[in-house]
Amino acid sequence: MKIVIIGASGTIGSAVATALAAQHQLITLGRNSGDYHLDIADPCSIKKALKAIYEQHGAIDALICAAGSVAFKTFAQLDDQDWQLGLTNKLMGQINLVRIASDYLAADASITLTSGILAEENIVTGVSAGTVNAALHGFVTSVAPVMANKIRINCVCPTVLEESMDLYSDYFPGFVPVSAKKVAQAYLRSVLGINTGEILKVY
Amino acid sequence: MKIVIIGASGTIGSAVATALAAQHQLITLGRNSGDYHLDIADPCSIKKALKAIYEQHGAIDALICAAGSVAFKTFAQLDDQDWQLGLTNKLMGQINLVRIASDYLAADASITLTSGILAEENIVTGVSAGTVNAALHGFVTSVAPVMANKIRINCVCPTVLEESMDLYSDYFPGFVPVSAKKVAQAYLRSVLGINTGEILKVY
Repeated sequence: MKIVIIGASGTIGSAVATALAAQHQLITLGRNSGDYHLDIADPCSIKKALKAIYEQHGAIDALICAAGSVAFKTFAQLDDQDWQLGLTNKLMGQINLVRIASDYLAADASITLTSGILAEENIVTGVSAGTVNAALHGFVTSVAPVMANKIRINCVCPTVLEESMDLYSDYFPGFVPVSAKKVAQAYLRSVLGINTGEILKVY
Repeated sequence: MKIVIIGASGTIGSAVATALAAQHQLITLGRNSGDYHLDIADPCSIKKALKAIYEQHGAIDALICAAGSVAFKTFAQLDDQDWQLGLTNKLMGQINLVRIASDYLAADASITLTSGILAEENIVTGVSAGTVNAALHGFVTSVAPVMANKIRINCVCPTVLEESMDLYSDYFPGFVPVSAKKVAQAYLRSVLGINTGEILKVY
């Protein structure tokens, strides 16, 4: 299977790549690393990267996005730019990926996006992330039934990672972290399974 | 109680006004109607209207928003502008209302926003609405625990209205409509009750 991973150098992306590498052809993308470069906040950059992959390798069987930025600040601290970051990058970045990818996907291909536990749980700096992650769930469940060419789409929703607890444990008090290796299995379920329109929670 | 209703001339807004008018002081707002004019897509317009109300009437006890636009098109038809409409108007319009309103609300005041059933149910032209309505649920549940001054915030999530079935029945096949009068009761529960962070579904 020809699998494209956006955010492949991140903690989750690299765990997903490790889990898939033995049996599949991986094409990795990142803002500054990977086989191709792409900025998900820029639709032109998405189109350019997917077109280049398509021309060089043919239609994509699975597209995974493990990238997307959102601001972590208190509600009072979140300014217009902070709100726009989450909407432009993590939300519309992934939505635009789906809009643009249809031209470059094989029939029966899958798309797997990434949200996060703040869609359902609250932390003091999580209002923008809670909004954006919930929006991604609404998008994936709404778009799955209307995808063309039997393309499946799911969203992995991880809790905080063991690998990130050094940085984030103060912000996620009492949240039991999971390993990136375990989170990677949810991407495999999406890519290799038959489900669509599902929110794959890992927590 | 001094209650501000945005979108007061709409089907829902006018039913809410009717239900509250006998026992409360209502201040109505709309883009082109009401006691004050406001365009929720424009933060300056929100600030100007709320400031004017505050200066003339004092602190607001309850703020209700029954306004917000989103594009209803198939996923393939939704263009960049259509996506931005939902994000700028119905989503960030209501989020900005909450951000700005804090300066003009009484302690223990309530804010009631409006989403819609497409947060949970799917129709072929509902991908943008599904995304935006789910985002509003994520916002309300995330922000409720961090609101200052004991301000409560809830979101009413109505299904399609009986009053709109002439226009919309083809788009909502098999959806059992409810009357605006019934939907209005959910706003009363939010305004006069003690709940916060709740999604009040009317369907």
